[in-house]
Amino acid sequence: MNLYRNLAELLGARIEQGLYRPGDRLPSVRSLSQEHGVSLSTVQQAYRTLEDRGLATPRPKSGYFVPPARQLPALPEVSRTTQRPVEVSQWDQVLQQIGGAPTDTLIQLGRGRPDISSPTLKPLLRSLSRLSRRQDLNCLTYGSLYGDLGLREQIARLMLDSGSRIAAEEIIVTTGCHEALLTALHAVCQPGDVVAVESPSFHGVMQALKGFGMKALELPTDPLTGVNLQALELALEQWPIKAIQLTPNCNNPLGYIMPEANKRALLTLAQRHDVAIIEDDVYGDLAYSYPRPRTIKSFDEDGRVLLCSSVSKTLIPGLRIGWIAPGRYLDRALHMKYMCTGSTAQVPQLALAEFIKGGHYEPHLRRMRAQYQRGRDLMSEWIARYFPPVVKVSQPVGSFMIWVEMPEDFDSHRLNRLLVEQGVQIATGSIFSAAGKYRNCLRMNYSTTSDEVEQALRIVGETVAGMLVE
Amino acid sequence: MNLYRNLAELLGARIEQGLYRPGDRLPSVRSLSQEHGVSLSTVQQAYRTLEDRGLATPRPKSGYFVPPARQLPALPEVSRTTQRPVEVSQWDQVLQQIGGAPTDTLIQLGRGRPDISSPTLKPLLRSLSRLSRRQDLNCLTYGSLYGDLGLREQIARLMLDSGSRIAAEEIIVTTGCHEALLTALHAVCQPGDVVAVESPSFHGVMQALKGFGMKALELPTDPLTGVNLQALELALEQWPIKAIQLTPNCNNPLGYIMPEANKRALLTLAQRHDVAIIEDDVYGDLAYSYPRPRTIKSFDEDGRVLLCSSVSKTLIPGLRIGWIAPGRYLDRALHMKYMCTGSTAQVPQLALAEFIKGGHYEPHLRRMRAQYQRGRDLMSEWIARYFPPVVKVSQPVGSFMIWVEMPEDFDSHRLNRLLVEQGVQIATGSIFSAAGKYRNCLRMNYSTTSDEVEQALRIVGETVAGMLVE
Repeated sequence: MNLYRNLAELLGARIEQGLYRPGDRLPSVRSLSQEHGVSLSTVQQAYRTLEDRGLATPRPKSGYFVPPARQLPALPEVSRTTQRPVEVSQWDQVLQQIGGAPTDTLIQLGRGRPDISSPTLKPLLRSLSRLSRRQDLNCLTYGSLYGDLGLREQIARLMLDSGSRIAAEEIIVTTGCHEALLTALHAVCQPGDVVAVESPSFHGVMQALKGFGMKALELPTDPLTGVNLQALELALEQWPIKAIQLTPNCNNPLGYIMPEANKRALLTLAQRHDVAIIEDDVYGDLAYSYPRPRTIKSFDEDGRVLLCSSVSKTLIPGLRIGWIAPGRYLDRALHMKYMCTGSTAQVPQLALAEFIKGGHYEPHLRRMRAQYQRGRDLMSEWIARYFPPVVKVSQPVGSFMIWVEMPEDFDSHRLNRLLVEQGVQIATGSIFSAAGKYRNCLRMNYSTTSDEVEQALRIVGETVAGMLVE
Repeated sequence: MNLYRNLAELLGARIEQGLYRPGDRLPSVRSLSQEHGVSLSTVQQAYRTLEDRGLATPRPKSGYFVPPARQLPALPEVSRTTQRPVEVSQWDQVLQQIGGAPTDTLIQLGRGRPDISSPTLKPLLRSLSRLSRRQDLNCLTYGSLYGDLGLREQIARLMLDSGSRIAAEEIIVTTGCHEALLTALHAVCQPGDVVAVESPSFHGVMQALKGFGMKALELPTDPLTGVNLQALELALEQWPIKAIQLTPNCNNPLGYIMPEANKRALLTLAQRHDVAIIEDDVYGDLAYSYPRPRTIKSFDEDGRVLLCSSVSKTLIPGLRIGWIAPGRYLDRALHMKYMCTGSTAQVPQLALAEFIKGGHYEPHLRRMRAQYQRGRDLMSEWIARYFPPVVKVSQPVGSFMIWVEMPEDFDSHRLNRLLVEQGVQIATGSIFSAAGKYRNCLRMNYSTTSDEVEQALRIVGETVAGMLVE
């Protein structure tokens, strides 16, 4: 199975990097089979994967071609980082952007919310409603500290898709992925410790580092392949790093999937330097390619990977259900879970277990993956249409967030202030950096792509353009 | 208002301490009025309060008498503590007792669960059910980091009953009181800091101290009036205490209400030594006396009290809704809240706000207070009937937990093992001490008092008796 995926990744990267231009004929199945020493059917499978990702189009009797339509803007730069551990700042910025309640008067492109209007979620809401009404003592009181066993069994089953065989007993249910990540950090680090993170990186983790008095070491990160492994190796030699925290699948905010070879290499580095890996897989099930990418956890043999996830991006954030598979750190993670929230609400756990067990999760995912992929294409098109051509744009291969880079001296804080006056909000880039870098960048959500969102995009693009000519 | 309450507390303490014996005539209204320099109606109000608490019975034309029926066993000793900060242990014990899921095969007298079968909860369950079904984007997505404003307004209104005027904007909704307490500790302390606690004390807080690498200083605590203020003053002079954490109202596990004068004195001490007070009021609304006791927070003028509470004991634990009013520490508390769980689930918040706003909270409380008071009387009776006379028993004036002290060398861990074989579970005393004291004590729940519970009490009593004659 890995052979065709590796080949697909390789070809995909070449196409996305522009080695093959739109309209170009791609290498024949036979030549690739010879070049890589794999069977014809392996190459065919790789091409079908590329087809699913919209990177190759078959023409009868002529082979595969790069689709002509999609004109991709330039990618953001590989991040330049200072390569020393820093204390995390930016709380004021984070608070300003995520502190408020949802509102109907502001189009919040900056929030990481999925679309929860899909009818495929109905069975989940029905279960929630029925279980709330039942007034069952065991359902409305304190549950097990580990979480409901039935749900943990379903989560273990889902994890098979990302390549992991984990027993239900090795999983702790948490109040969203937030609690899972906090639990993971606390399980492996002490105040003062250094944690290596991608750059840009999820602000929730960095604020937890700040809260615990830990330091973030931001690693240079490629917008297509993720964290730079040479830089990581150097950092591991130079600094007393205790853990590496990353989101290798459908990265937030850059949208890449780290190639499998890189995941393995990263794990080897972690083993050699004996550091833990805190893997956030909250977007992994939303990869546009099928089968979904493997987790680093799936290659883990000595329990050093703490896998954190939730259904807040795939299903409904308001359930506040996440989980952690903490490997060898199970005891410490459980203690932290107890400290944080005592136990997780039971009704959403039972409803979620029913939903997955009833076979509703996969159909919902298929629908959302397709919707988000169309959203990505629309969003890219709108950015090309409404933004000045100087901007650089990420090419997400999963999830529903896109990253836009403006020229270096651009001020996205000012942009956001101007936008809020016009009823639109974006996430400023600096909250994704411990040191407040990426002030010239922004992140936007394309989980829904209504006319209203297009209008909002137009407002953002025009405001950016206006600021650039000032 | 304070005059009659102070007088009632004074008289109540005298009665409970045995200064007046069952059947004794209590001082006349006139003599008390002269002795304390208060009006006749103030004394009458004080007596009515004592009547409500079952401590005084009026006889027409003869005045007030100590009720003859209630034969109280001896009180537990004032706790003897080592008076130096220690690192918290006992996690294994806690985990063993609270780690598991609710089960029908074990009568769990050791858990702190309220009775959730009352029909007065139905409106809450209906709201939960309806809101879950509605599939409203704003209701099922991430809410405000502070919590729903409508709920915070209702919480602020409830707080008036405990004497606090706090704006909704000063309250943060949390995932149960656990998250509130963790947030409070993190807001005022650093690793290595010393926190003074009651002894015995709630294990959740002590495990949080352990998790954060803080130390607990256990203070001698009186089973009727709470923490010993002289000992606290000495400790404040001797040790670099950063915060005092306590549950002054319907204390867990001892069931006392700290007299108002002591609350004021404690606050003065905290001011003089500039330490924060973390007040757990999760049982305060379950005091058997009316009006409910005031919080220390209600006397706080400089924002040094962080008030933590929830509806897990008054309504339904499974809602996982609590709150913190962190005074001057609002910013730090909010950051910790973000670290822990990002945001609190919206549906239970909205349902709870509806429930309180709809006027359903107070009637439910009245019913539960009466039920728990009857439960206290029954439980005391059963202990007197089934336990060996050597045991000492707390006299809870609120909530639904009772504390039993056996002779000093008694091993409640062994007792629990013997009980579990017979389908009963109790909370061993040692989890309520940072240093594992109170191994000779146990805590039991009387939120429900069915025949089954009486049978369980008989089993506990007989097993204790059997161990004592070995």
